[in-house]
Amino acid sequence: MRIEELKFKDEQGLVPVVVQDADTKEVLMLAYANPQALRLTMETGRAHFWSRSRQRLWLKGEESGNYQDVVEVRADCDGDAVLYLVHPKGPACHTGAKTCFHNTLKP
Amino acid sequence: MRIEELKFKDEQGLVPVVVQDADTKEVLMLAYANPQALRLTMETGRAHFWSRSRQRLWLKGEESGNYQDVVEVRADCDGDAVLYLVHPKGPACHTGAKTCFHNTLKP
Repeated sequence: MRIEELKFKDEQGLVPVVVQDADTKEVLMLAYANPQALRLTMETGRAHFWSRSRQRLWLKGEESGNYQDVVEVRADCDGDAVLYLVHPKGPACHTGAKTCFHNTLKP
Repeated sequence: MRIEELKFKDEQGLVPVVVQDADTKEVLMLAYANPQALRLTMETGRAHFWSRSRQRLWLKGEESGNYQDVVEVRADCDGDAVLYLVHPKGPACHTGAKTCFHNTLKP
């Protein structure tokens, strides 16, 4: 599948990106990308996203140094979600945790 | 974290849900949930979502029999994404593939 075949169908023209550790298989975070962020990810081998809070392109690790080297980029069957398989240079979470998914959800 | 602390902030009041196989750690699919779908998932132990295409509650496997038994539900650090860890009863993908993320994305 090619970038132009994806469906950027939320109100901001973004696609959700699941980030998974290529070795441990841990799910690290969920973020969003536009076509430019996906292209830069593939060209540079480093995970890029579109920051919804800052409304700008976001190279993961640009401030923290915790870059994510991208091994593979996959799309789902209907082209409305993306998966980055990465080797993280440090914690994914701004709290310092390895993964952002460190809270059990309760009813 | 509790369901009412989550941010259902897309235009439809939904939160994205990453579904991961609890044993193999494979990422199986990405779907969406509202508070009711999350509550039913926790109460029944089976993955429920909100189907955006059909605009209704969706018990995964209701037609195919490919239910996903949910081992744990996690929220991410800022409460705007959810992770279901599951034991799938069959393929996640409507194509019959084990995971929906079976396409390599190219520029």
